[in-house]
Amino acid sequence: MKIKITKLKEKMLSVFQEKFTAKEAEIITEYLIWAEMSGIKTQGMIKLIGAEPLQDIEPKHAIKIERDTKLSQLINAGGAPAPLVSSIATDTVITKSKQYGFGIVGVHNTFSSNGSQAYYVEKIAKMGLIGFMCSRSPAATSAFGSIDPLFGTNPFGVAFPTQEEPLVFDMATSAITWYGLILAKARGEKIPKNVAIDVNGAITTDPAKAMEGSLLSFDKSYKGSTIGALVEVLAGPLVSSAYIDNKTFKEEWGSLFIALNPNLLVDAEKFKSSCSDLIKKIKNSRKKKGVTEIRLPGERSKTEYKKTLTSGFVDIDEVILKKLKFI
Amino acid sequence: MKIKITKLKEKMLSVFQEKFTAKEAEIITEYLIWAEMSGIKTQGMIKLIGAEPLQDIEPKHAIKIERDTKLSQLINAGGAPAPLVSSIATDTVITKSKQYGFGIVGVHNTFSSNGSQAYYVEKIAKMGLIGFMCSRSPAATSAFGSIDPLFGTNPFGVAFPTQEEPLVFDMATSAITWYGLILAKARGEKIPKNVAIDVNGAITTDPAKAMEGSLLSFDKSYKGSTIGALVEVLAGPLVSSAYIDNKTFKEEWGSLFIALNPNLLVDAEKFKSSCSDLIKKIKNSRKKKGVTEIRLPGERSKTEYKKTLTSGFVDIDEVILKKLKFI
Repeated sequence: MKIKITKLKEKMLSVFQEKFTAKEAEIITEYLIWAEMSGIKTQGMIKLIGAEPLQDIEPKHAIKIERDTKLSQLINAGGAPAPLVSSIATDTVITKSKQYGFGIVGVHNTFSSNGSQAYYVEKIAKMGLIGFMCSRSPAATSAFGSIDPLFGTNPFGVAFPTQEEPLVFDMATSAITWYGLILAKARGEKIPKNVAIDVNGAITTDPAKAMEGSLLSFDKSYKGSTIGALVEVLAGPLVSSAYIDNKTFKEEWGSLFIALNPNLLVDAEKFKSSCSDLIKKIKNSRKKKGVTEIRLPGERSKTEYKKTLTSGFVDIDEVILKKLKFI
Repeated sequence: MKIKITKLKEKMLSVFQEKFTAKEAEIITEYLIWAEMSGIKTQGMIKLIGAEPLQDIEPKHAIKIERDTKLSQLINAGGAPAPLVSSIATDTVITKSKQYGFGIVGVHNTFSSNGSQAYYVEKIAKMGLIGFMCSRSPAATSAFGSIDPLFGTNPFGVAFPTQEEPLVFDMATSAITWYGLILAKARGEKIPKNVAIDVNGAITTDPAKAMEGSLLSFDKSYKGSTIGALVEVLAGPLVSSAYIDNKTFKEEWGSLFIALNPNLLVDAEKFKSSCSDLIKKIKNSRKKKGVTEIRLPGERSKTEYKKTLTSGFVDIDEVILKKLKFI
């Protein structure tokens, strides 16, 4: 149902302020409302209901900065919610990149996932910088030729500044997301053919069997598997997180954040205008039969966000609102 | 036919020294012999025969460094052969990354392509650094939903240091390489189904029609198309190269090189041992029916390289050797 954005924000803040500081509550709320406003419901307020609601998380220890150089920082999140720590990491790479041209931050030991990577990299690109991030999650996806879960669903996101809105890429490297399995299971539905295998390596359309087995890479082949492995290294060993391991489900999620100032190589304004021109060239190219518009990555959610912002109201699942006693 | 590596090198050097300095000849020769020894014949000495042999290239002007900061450099190659300039760029990112933790170099205006990206990123990883590179080439690949050639075949490569040999990833983001088309056409063969479309957007198995039309992304879907676009920006506007353009076929090839010291975030030795362990876990995982070994990216060419090195002889196409008057 439609709820006023300002009212929703107020209620969310009061929920998070029970366990977190005002500043922390603000950061987490900002992410969750962005996801809802962008129509990315699978990465939004759904995190507040279920077995381990985000607002009830008790971090194991305070956030620790384990390494700190001019260009870099390694953060041990102490089990704090990922959207909180990842927002801090995003601000840090922006600051470093603004000062030195490049900033890199590794985060490990968060509670659960960041949600949508688009949120963080878009923030970086809005500062005129190139944003990159990737995350590893508990082992769920097999490597090409293997039938064991090895890599996480391992999403990555990239954003480029343009003269208009940033160009934002955001994708999982698995053929289906973990949430896709949960949803199908809850609804008693089958999953598509050729996205997952059971524990013995046979293709399955049963989400429960897929959970015990493995997901396939997004291209069901070796290139996608290679990209999944790449994320596993960058958001695993490189950030002091776990890797190829589903035994530490709660503790060792990892993420890598990078911000790069294009002026290290070229004029920053020229870069932005070239990116705008590149987008225009893609959108104006000849379309495949049946295609009315060439959509760029992230375009749909950006349109949804703007529409919601203009209306002042956001559509939230009534079940969630009731459970949180917001209505 | 088999030829002694030392003899081949000597002959190659004398060929390149006609137009290039001794140092430059050494750099180009080193790349080409590496490609041949690694069994990557499509990216090796084949470049010395054909319409525009590499050894006959007359650069338009000397290599110009157009931007130079502690962390970065932008190089205008002046139409020099890509393997020469890219080797210089590789050395530069290594030096910068060794000193500051991070180095980034953009190259534009090379003659033709770098060949195999694995060569450059492996060099970086052998220095204990994480290597990344990507290149854009003349427009050949369509974006998802489009039927026009927009992106190049846009390969990227990544290499991680381990306790043993580096882990090297190297892939084109198109479903077939341009060289794959040339070869099929020369042999009068068809190309696989569902890798390319003709000028009107219909799937074609005729390589000539594919050349006039477009290649598809490696996954034939939107994620692969997104990664192709990503490379187009990183090795296009970010390095002052052309983008979405096949009119400047010879002039505006672009490449981006990055070296990152893992010690910006974690202990470098720990990182190497974790990468070795990660590889072991992938290789030791349960195999799909019919798979006897899980091959890592780059494994086959590395094995071939070692075998060739040990024997002292490399197998070169007789047609090439005759044309170059090496035999």
